Amino acid sequence: MATIGFIGLGNMGGPMAINLAKAGHTVQAFDLSEAAIKRVAEAGATAAASAAEAVKGAEFVVSMLPAGKHVRGLFLGDDGLLGQMEQGALLIDSSTIDADSARAVAEAAQAAGCAMIDAPVSGGVAGAEGGTLTFMVGGNSADVDRARPLLEVMGAKIFHAGDAGAGQVAKMCNNMLLAISMIGTSEALNLGVSEGLDPSVLSDIMQSASGGNWVLNVYNPYPGVMEKAPASRGYTGGFGTALMLKDLGLAADAAVKCGSSTPLGGLARQLYAMHAAGGSADKDFSSILQMLQGKAQ
Amino acid sequence: MATIGFIGLGNMGGPMAINLAKAGHTVQAFDLSEAAIKRVAEAGATAAASAAEAVKGAEFVVSMLPAGKHVRGLFLGDDGLLGQMEQGALLIDSSTIDADSARAVAEAAQAAGCAMIDAPVSGGVAGAEGGTLTFMVGGNSADVDRARPLLEVMGAKIFHAGDAGAGQVAKMCNNMLLAISMIGTSEALNLGVSEGLDPSVLSDIMQSASGGNWVLNVYNPYPGVMEKAPASRGYTGGFGTALMLKDLGLAADAAVKCGSSTPLGGLARQLYAMHAAGGSADKDFSSILQMLQGKAQ
Amino acid sequence: MATIGFIGLGNMGGPMAINLAKAGHTVQAFDLSEAAIKRVAEAGATAAASAAEAVKGAEFVVSMLPAGKHVRGLFLGDDGLLGQMEQGALLIDSSTIDADSARAVAEAAQAAGCAMIDAPVSGGVAGAEGGTLTFMVGGNSADVDRARPLLEVMGAKIFHAGDAGAGQVAKMCNNMLLAISMIGTSEALNLGVSEGLDPSVLSDIMQSASGGNWVLNVYNPYPGVMEKAPASRGYTGGFGTALMLKDLGLAADAAVKCGSSTPLGGLARQLYAMHAAGGSADKDFSSILQMLQGKAQ
Amino acid sequence: MATIGFIGLGNMGGPMAINLAKAGHTVQAFDLSEAAIKRVAEAGATAAASAAEAVKGAEFVVSMLPAGKHVRGLFLGDDGLLGQMEQGALLIDSSTIDADSARAVAEAAQAAGCAMIDAPVSGGVAGAEGGTLTFMVGGNSADVDRARPLLEVMGAKIFHAGDAGAGQVAKMCNNMLLAISMIGTSEALNLGVSEGLDPSVLSDIMQSASGGNWVLNVYNPYPGVMEKAPASRGYTGGFGTALMLKDLGLAADAAVKCGSSTPLGGLARQLYAMHAAGGSADKDFSSILQMLQGKAQ
Repeated sequence: MATIGFIGLGNMGGPMAINLAKAGHTVQAFDLSEAAIKRVAEAGATAAASAAEAVKGAEFVVSMLPAGKHVRGLFLGDDGLLGQMEQGALLIDSSTIDADSARAVAEAAQAAGCAMIDAPVSGGVAGAEGGTLTFMVGGNSADVDRARPLLEVMGAKIFHAGDAGAGQVAKMCNNMLLAISMIGTSEALNLGVSEGLDPSVLSDIMQSASGGNWVLNVYNPYPGVMEKAPASRGYTGGFGTALMLKDLGLAADAAVKCGSSTPLGGLARQLYAMHAAGGSADKDFSSILQMLQGKAQ
Repeated sequence: MATIGFIGLGNMGGPMAINLAKAGHTVQAFDLSEAAIKRVAEAGATAAASAAEAVKGAEFVVSMLPAGKHVRGLFLGDDGLLGQMEQGALLIDSSTIDADSARAVAEAAQAAGCAMIDAPVSGGVAGAEGGTLTFMVGGNSADVDRARPLLEVMGAKIFHAGDAGAGQVAKMCNNMLLAISMIGTSEALNLGVSEGLDPSVLSDIMQSASGGNWVLNVYNPYPGVMEKAPASRGYTGGFGTALMLKDLGLAADAAVKCGSSTPLGGLARQLYAMHAAGGSADKDFSSILQMLQGKAQ
Repeated sequence: MATIGFIGLGNMGGPMAINLAKAGHTVQAFDLSEAAIKRVAEAGATAAASAAEAVKGAEFVVSMLPAGKHVRGLFLGDDGLLGQMEQGALLIDSSTIDADSARAVAEAAQAAGCAMIDAPVSGGVAGAEGGTLTFMVGGNSADVDRARPLLEVMGAKIFHAGDAGAGQVAKMCNNMLLAISMIGTSEALNLGVSEGLDPSVLSDIMQSASGGNWVLNVYNPYPGVMEKAPASRGYTGGFGTALMLKDLGLAADAAVKCGSSTPLGGLARQLYAMHAAGGSADKDFSSILQMLQGKAQ
Repeated sequence: MATIGFIGLGNMGGPMAINLAKAGHTVQAFDLSEAAIKRVAEAGATAAASAAEAVKGAEFVVSMLPAGKHVRGLFLGDDGLLGQMEQGALLIDSSTIDADSARAVAEAAQAAGCAMIDAPVSGGVAGAEGGTLTFMVGGNSADVDRARPLLEVMGAKIFHAGDAGAGQVAKMCNNMLLAISMIGTSEALNLGVSEGLDPSVLSDIMQSASGGNWVLNVYNPYPGVMEKAPASRGYTGGFGTALMLKDLGLAADAAVKCGSSTPLGGLARQLYAMHAAGGSADKDFSSILQMLQGKAQ
């Protein structure tokens, strides 16, 4: 059993920390919100009074923060947390951030005598609570192997995508493709229904044919087709439009930076930006069907 | 065993007619090309001297023609073939055409004392030869059931999509979604590789994650990832860019007609139009990756 | 002074017919709406009991109908109006329709011993009332010259775009470009304002710089920048979203038919389709700014 | 007459510095390239051995650098050039960079007892040489007025867009709109020509109608329409695709950052990214017409 510093105890980080504690690890938990610390401490973790206290004596540090600037702000710089971590400790950053920030922290970690892997997740709050998250991991193999026992407590699938930053790149690419699939599936269903087809029948056909994709398998955007999908409960729960917009922004920034062409991915970002501006930021991202139908608000 | 008139014996229609003949049916085959008739006749069909001769005495007529204007031109009008078909005969039109044309022919067939189902296919030449096509069928259930034994000779999957025209709508929607998936997958792989990832590793991750789709399963557009995919043999064989462009044109026309929004589907058509104009009309449609990379020509 | 049959007396056709009558021409006016005929008759035209009566004895026939199917339906076929027009009469079709329909009617007119030019207009209801329309004309030069005196009564600018159908093509291309300019200008203003600029200042700068266009000159989409623009009166009046959507549909159909790439024009159609579906079909087309801002409804 | 430090003497900065020297100002010129310094010194400027020497004793400093990182790198930080400028000196940064960088330098300049305005230009090398550039300026009015005599030596139009950063925002918005106009005009001309129109006739019509824009006025992308446009000399000279792509990247980044929707602007960036990747990075940006036509390479 390991001693783990855990920083960032929100909707995702909280249950992840709790799962580590329940598995028998010593989890030193910190968050800017005392209420968040309290919830995790009640479930078996140890409350830390500061980030520095959380990482003290820890072989592993797990962080789950909102954006690249928070991760850089916390770990880098003269007073950064990397300077206070134990020699040889391994940082597992599960935040979804830009790959450049991930690479910068990894480099600084190494310079500080520590190590770092980027390990963003998919699977949402349900996956965090159930310990069934998918991890996409960037870093060297030895570090990934060292982290694997902890990742397996928090998740069900662990993919090693490549070197430092590769976990972030893989998640960004996957989520861009997911957004494209969601909008494309919504367009196809909407067009078919406009032409008189039953959305369930059309969904079945495309799922079995060359249009098949994950959205049709488990996350159908048409209300009533799939009882458990957000579309069938007013687009509540699930993965919010604002979060998808954030991921598409990371992809757009990366495409600009490396001069890559992502015409459908770029348009997907624009559509989600309009959808969010129109008042649907908090709805599940499958509600993009409503924008196509002019029912978004 | 039935007597079947078969009109249109090209790359797709030819092997379909042969499969019906091999199954023991009497196939009266006609095409504007004598060579095409000869190939089919040598494989067991009966050569017909005209379309009228082909449908004479036939309980079923199967047609496989290039576009809506050919289907309307052949069957409709005062001298149309519907007037020469046997009373009660069932027309199975497997051409990929616009739904309005399919509905117009279905209505005229009924008025002429016959019946018609639209039954476009996917699966390509290999599927036609192997009898493993997928049929997407529109028409009333009795007619679809009546056609089923023939469809099962020519295909492996038969989907009843709805009333007259619904088969065409289903195929159009599916192929629009397929085009979107193909471009989206290409964008994601291209972006990932630009950011240093291995295309095979990224493909595996997305296939298992929420970006999963048919393209990643069997038709990876990145050269070298999937040995049997067209991408690994110079984008030869497979499903041509020009054919995908035709299907996207049908979807674009339908969207304009019914006032539907298909932003990604519309952009997909534009990209394939540029790709075809740039000299890739005959390449497999997964070669769209090359256009993203600036290597299209 | 000429005898003119005028068919189609709506918001556009009505004032156009009245202007011809006021200029001293004998205008035999017909519409399916008796109220429309009455309004025009009261302003000096002669009420006709039917389309056939309207064209009787007329050297010119002007038509202003909603779509290609109405024009084809009225003039073509065994009972079509072309067969009832005087030998040598010139048909001026000012409807905005697809070029193929225009070409088909022009050909049939010639076969019937008449002539036809396509002469769609821009300038809206105000232009029709004030006699300041812009005509974009397709047909041979002799016919265009013959029509010119009438066109100059109804309009201020007459452009000869080319042979039969060219007037429709020119209008379609122009309006596609207008839609692109409108959305592009809206995006630029919206982005600038998001970054803290004053929309009037930014409009002035772009108007004088390389972003300058007709929209910035006379039709600014930002409320308050231009007192007389629809944007400054709640996007009422002006050129409706539904009408722009119709024109973009003509352009999209033409692009599909000739295999042309119109990526921005295609996306403009999609955006206007969503905007119309969202309840803004009757607003001025500059209200697309509101969709970008999430205020469309 | 003023003493001016001038840093960055490339294709744009060089002739700008020379124009200031020819107007009688004392210009202390520096660049990383000695050859660049030599050219400017031969035309009347004083060669400086370092950036620090260039700004010594200068009331004004003009900088013309490639990107935000160069501007931040030169002026900010403990050893930054702001610390070596004279108290009260005014920095005129004519680089085209992101607004955030411009604001950061402006703030730091104020803290250092200096002042800064952002003053990016349009007009290209010809405008720099002829002293006919357009300046879009951000900063407070007093500073802009103080800079005006120098700006008027180097340019013909000076727009005050707003506070710090506003010059960069105005240029970014303008150039995004320009890119949209260029592609939209190219699409309209290409579609019209596909439908049989003469590109010159169609250009004339749209220029006089509601499709009118700067591109049609002075920069027609269709070869042969406008003798002096880059399109008529093989798309050489003019404003390169790579430079337009850079400006569209700035707009895309800004749109992501402030959550703004720029669907056409975003697609324009994607198209230029594909065009550049396809080997046209160095061609004039009006060559995008060639990509639409499939002739890009």
